[in-house]
Amino acid sequence: MSGNTFGSVFKITTWGESHGPAVGVVVDGCPPRLPLNEVMIQTMLERRRPGRSSASTGRNEPDKALILSGVFDGVTTGTPIMIMIHNRDADPRSYDHLADVYRPGHGDITYKAKYGIRDWRGGGRASARETAGRVAAGAVARELLQREHIGVWAYTIALGGVMAHERNLAVMDNNPYYCPDEQAAAAMEKRVQEIKKQGDSVGGVVEILVRGVPKGLGEPVFDKLDADLAKALMSIGAVKGIEIGSGFQVPARLGSQNNDPITPEGFLSNHAGGILAGISNGDEILMRVAVKPIPSIRIEQQTIDTAGRPRTISIQGRHDIAAIPRINVVCESMVNLVLADHLLRHRRIQ
Amino acid sequence: MSGNTFGSVFKITTWGESHGPAVGVVVDGCPPRLPLNEVMIQTMLERRRPGRSSASTGRNEPDKALILSGVFDGVTTGTPIMIMIHNRDADPRSYDHLADVYRPGHGDITYKAKYGIRDWRGGGRASARETAGRVAAGAVARELLQREHIGVWAYTIALGGVMAHERNLAVMDNNPYYCPDEQAAAAMEKRVQEIKKQGDSVGGVVEILVRGVPKGLGEPVFDKLDADLAKALMSIGAVKGIEIGSGFQVPARLGSQNNDPITPEGFLSNHAGGILAGISNGDEILMRVAVKPIPSIRIEQQTIDTAGRPRTISIQGRHDIAAIPRINVVCESMVNLVLADHLLRHRRIQ
Amino acid sequence: MSGNTFGSVFKITTWGESHGPAVGVVVDGCPPRLPLNEVMIQTMLERRRPGRSSASTGRNEPDKALILSGVFDGVTTGTPIMIMIHNRDADPRSYDHLADVYRPGHGDITYKAKYGIRDWRGGGRASARETAGRVAAGAVARELLQREHIGVWAYTIALGGVMAHERNLAVMDNNPYYCPDEQAAAAMEKRVQEIKKQGDSVGGVVEILVRGVPKGLGEPVFDKLDADLAKALMSIGAVKGIEIGSGFQVPARLGSQNNDPITPEGFLSNHAGGILAGISNGDEILMRVAVKPIPSIRIEQQTIDTAGRPRTISIQGRHDIAAIPRINVVCESMVNLVLADHLLRHRRIQ
Amino acid sequence: MSGNTFGSVFKITTWGESHGPAVGVVVDGCPPRLPLNEVMIQTMLERRRPGRSSASTGRNEPDKALILSGVFDGVTTGTPIMIMIHNRDADPRSYDHLADVYRPGHGDITYKAKYGIRDWRGGGRASARETAGRVAAGAVARELLQREHIGVWAYTIALGGVMAHERNLAVMDNNPYYCPDEQAAAAMEKRVQEIKKQGDSVGGVVEILVRGVPKGLGEPVFDKLDADLAKALMSIGAVKGIEIGSGFQVPARLGSQNNDPITPEGFLSNHAGGILAGISNGDEILMRVAVKPIPSIRIEQQTIDTAGRPRTISIQGRHDIAAIPRINVVCESMVNLVLADHLLRHRRIQ
Repeated sequence: MSGNTFGSVFKITTWGESHGPAVGVVVDGCPPRLPLNEVMIQTMLERRRPGRSSASTGRNEPDKALILSGVFDGVTTGTPIMIMIHNRDADPRSYDHLADVYRPGHGDITYKAKYGIRDWRGGGRASARETAGRVAAGAVARELLQREHIGVWAYTIALGGVMAHERNLAVMDNNPYYCPDEQAAAAMEKRVQEIKKQGDSVGGVVEILVRGVPKGLGEPVFDKLDADLAKALMSIGAVKGIEIGSGFQVPARLGSQNNDPITPEGFLSNHAGGILAGISNGDEILMRVAVKPIPSIRIEQQTIDTAGRPRTISIQGRHDIAAIPRINVVCESMVNLVLADHLLRHRRIQ
Repeated sequence: MSGNTFGSVFKITTWGESHGPAVGVVVDGCPPRLPLNEVMIQTMLERRRPGRSSASTGRNEPDKALILSGVFDGVTTGTPIMIMIHNRDADPRSYDHLADVYRPGHGDITYKAKYGIRDWRGGGRASARETAGRVAAGAVARELLQREHIGVWAYTIALGGVMAHERNLAVMDNNPYYCPDEQAAAAMEKRVQEIKKQGDSVGGVVEILVRGVPKGLGEPVFDKLDADLAKALMSIGAVKGIEIGSGFQVPARLGSQNNDPITPEGFLSNHAGGILAGISNGDEILMRVAVKPIPSIRIEQQTIDTAGRPRTISIQGRHDIAAIPRINVVCESMVNLVLADHLLRHRRIQ
Repeated sequence: MSGNTFGSVFKITTWGESHGPAVGVVVDGCPPRLPLNEVMIQTMLERRRPGRSSASTGRNEPDKALILSGVFDGVTTGTPIMIMIHNRDADPRSYDHLADVYRPGHGDITYKAKYGIRDWRGGGRASARETAGRVAAGAVARELLQREHIGVWAYTIALGGVMAHERNLAVMDNNPYYCPDEQAAAAMEKRVQEIKKQGDSVGGVVEILVRGVPKGLGEPVFDKLDADLAKALMSIGAVKGIEIGSGFQVPARLGSQNNDPITPEGFLSNHAGGILAGISNGDEILMRVAVKPIPSIRIEQQTIDTAGRPRTISIQGRHDIAAIPRINVVCESMVNLVLADHLLRHRRIQ
Repeated sequence: MSGNTFGSVFKITTWGESHGPAVGVVVDGCPPRLPLNEVMIQTMLERRRPGRSSASTGRNEPDKALILSGVFDGVTTGTPIMIMIHNRDADPRSYDHLADVYRPGHGDITYKAKYGIRDWRGGGRASARETAGRVAAGAVARELLQREHIGVWAYTIALGGVMAHERNLAVMDNNPYYCPDEQAAAAMEKRVQEIKKQGDSVGGVVEILVRGVPKGLGEPVFDKLDADLAKALMSIGAVKGIEIGSGFQVPARLGSQNNDPITPEGFLSNHAGGILAGISNGDEILMRVAVKPIPSIRIEQQTIDTAGRPRTISIQGRHDIAAIPRINVVCESMVNLVLADHLLRHRRIQ
């Protein structure tokens, strides 16, 4: 009802504000006897931490995950798993000047409209810091998926106008942008540094690939696997578009081009992106999301204060230039969560 | 859990198969004392019926809506509203030849994988006929929205490669494609007739515009207004991509171009598409969905039978050439449902 | 949210008013490939029909169940099962005199307070007729339970002050009160006839016994098996009290008397009623519910009209003298539904 | 699905095990701008702490509540409120001897059956320590109710066979048993001391009174106010029976005795317990719950070990003699939560 919970069987609830004492997540519905420890979670959180690329210049949080419940003797017990991450580098006073002004492109103005109050310290609940809880939960889901031999990859295929032309997943971990095209990665780095100097920010495209999904996941009619994936990905702050399989190519195609012929050995193409009528068909699942530029920029912008008077604003301080590459693991985590949930949902009919 | 229910306060559950005795919907959570009668529902169902354009050549159903509960003396009572639509023109025997073969691009193969059984008569539950229930429910939601002065329009901006260049909403009801560009509409009709002769089908793009949404609708973090809209639209069978505001344009934009400046009179642009941090900002909401070509085509395709042996298939009979224009009112209905739900959800904090 | 849905995996939504065209239920989440037909449902509905005992003098409905979806070739398909029961003997005009008066002990006054409108024809949605949908759904659940060798019995152990002293389940179907004590059954019949002459009504106690429940059903912490059973039974209109195992005997017992000793062969007693910490322990589940007298009586009562003025009322017409024995199958159905739901919920961790 | 969440709008999720690092709760759906601080929560937690009566001899926890999110400048913001309580006095090693044996009357055997693993340290998740989270959440709900002038009292009317004959709420806080009859309270204390010497435990009855509930709360059909209250109370570990209004007295009453006559000034009696057809009627709500004796006793009992071999067990150490009086505030908290939830649910139709 209040939007802080995701999933129906493998269910998570995140809590916490950017500059409160901590952020965290309760993972409920995880099956018992799954190996789990803080290192597994930390590994995923590391991919969300700033500092790997020039695009990330944000605050430096150790992001140390603490498991406070639901694990006994190194395995899950079937009870809620509470994972907490302290906010160490929180510096609420550095946001004092934002207390009475709305930043363009941010939720400042809409939170105030909705709740009549807003925690203006670093975006409060609307901060991307909330996604630390998602990533921690996604790491739990990942353990479940790995047991079923399902793998998820989220890599950058466009950033600041630079496109990746290859899909060499083997190299994606070798560059700070999780880009499967090394030449493109180098060009992205160059582009980001230019933009940084200008005090501006850039957007990009993340592609998500899933391998090993068994046939039969997804619930018609409304909780189609692609519908739940779309919601999961669109719930990430910076995402403005989603496509599955051939996506926005399909409007220009004919049925005879777009259908995937079926043979005894499997499908001959994958325009569907691995999902038919909302249910996985056993093929690879392929999605792309459009990521908007970070709205916090040094360049001066027109806005209003909380009393409705015109103001200009130039946002200084620690801000990323692009949501990519930190957003990649968030995308991957959300996909992990959807798949874990549908895996468990499907068991009711087995 | 089983995916047949949508919404959390204004909640609908559709039921029924394409060639069973009837399809329908239970609308639960509609406020009491809202005027409602069968004519209001019929009006919307008419827009879903085949026969208006050359693209629609499907079976001819009267689609007569019956309200069986929840309404007393012409107004809602606050109890569940059951709306039933009989399947009159159902001819299950005409599908006998599909009992043991999987149609490419359809859910035949995935339903069988999921449930171990499938109602092969016209797609069963996976048939677009299920959306009659959505449209009936959307008509109820529409009454609620109109009381709040919220309007939703779903119009065609691309079909079979023909693009609309104008957005003249005044003319959209004058052509069978709900296209806001009359020249484009004529070209679409021509294109559809060509494709029809070839035994093929086409895709397109539907744009959805919402006016009058108050500030403050949408629930952070997971049930963002755009996340719920994305799920709602992606749950429609033929939809493969969704974008909000600048959508897939944002990856190529700079932050300084993409932020919408705020003035005392409102926003100076609307790249956000009317939603900031998942909450409506009072501006127009604008979305576009990519609609795939109808998978049922006369052109011969490669497939397998239920025993896994190779087969070819040429789908004869009554099939649309494009999901557009019949899908438009389904898109509009889903948006109606999301907005009605969030309107009521928001009341808890008022 | 609106209270018309029960269950989380095996989920039902009832709809319909006492004197509308029909009542019914959507059963969602039933596993596929379960044999189901209208006869199975009818068998249970028969036990809810009036006319078997002197206690039931209500309207005579054929209560013919129609399955409109979710079943194909005699088995469930995994899609929603819609079951409809027409209201044939509805005579709304006979309730005209109740349009402007509140019946004591009924929901007339509270429905008006809640919704600002009420369907006064025979209680509308608050009528016990709504339970026809529950019984139809319970019959579906029963098929699932029988496959797992789980049996549920709901029998009368008190009526109008007459107590059953035996628990001979073999005879319960031989008397109209589903009483497991034949002598008591005869005394109940006598008592009911006396009360009927006086224009009054009586209450009683129904006991529910479940055999064959495997260990492990029930979800701590809030959805304990006994908590869900309590809600299920308390949601039946006339029920005012519930106890499990030793129930209201436990306050007077010592721990050493109340604990059930455990041996390698099982528990030596069953004060727990088959549930420990909210999870089934493999023993029989035993509950009792207190059923209030039917509030509609011929004896004159003090009340007010819808304008708030004092009135007296004597309710004529077709009314039961006791909710028992018709309520028994409703109790059984609700227990069936809870067990079916928890059976399926438990599968996620298997 | 996993049973750790309660409520639909005002929703709580508890987490934590008895001897893990902490227990806690996420309160989601609380309206914004409600004053809230740790003292308000601490006040309620104090009533749950051991040491006030001879019946409570359990471990001594400071039970210090920390609010980690959802509150800004002393008021709620509408985002999730995470409240954490550290386990300070946890001494897991003192439970080592219980690692391989099942305590009679406890959930040890059923948790093992359900999950295949159990955290045996002090009952793990099944421990009454979990209720600290409920009380913390109940304290938040209480703030909301007080703003609406709704008050809830939970007092002891029977303990170890001693009955309260008066209902003098003014004195209930003057004795350690929250008993509204001072003479009975003294007799209860005496009785508890006797039982303590014998190494046994006792049960009792808690009555809950609610004043100030407006008309119209509660959702027909399944989420009746009394059904939700029954579930809430039955979800408390030691509760084995629940009655509302005349409860288990109704089976012996006639309709003419049990109906509450209506006058322009209100109801002339309250056998209904303030609820008609599941909706509050504006009168006082009155319930009673049967509380079983604490299963942990010093007296030797028959049981089995985890290998299924017979064992005897005498439970030493820190255990309460009765769940009363510590359970009283848990009952009150659950009622607070149900009322807060239904208050907010009801707003959707206002």
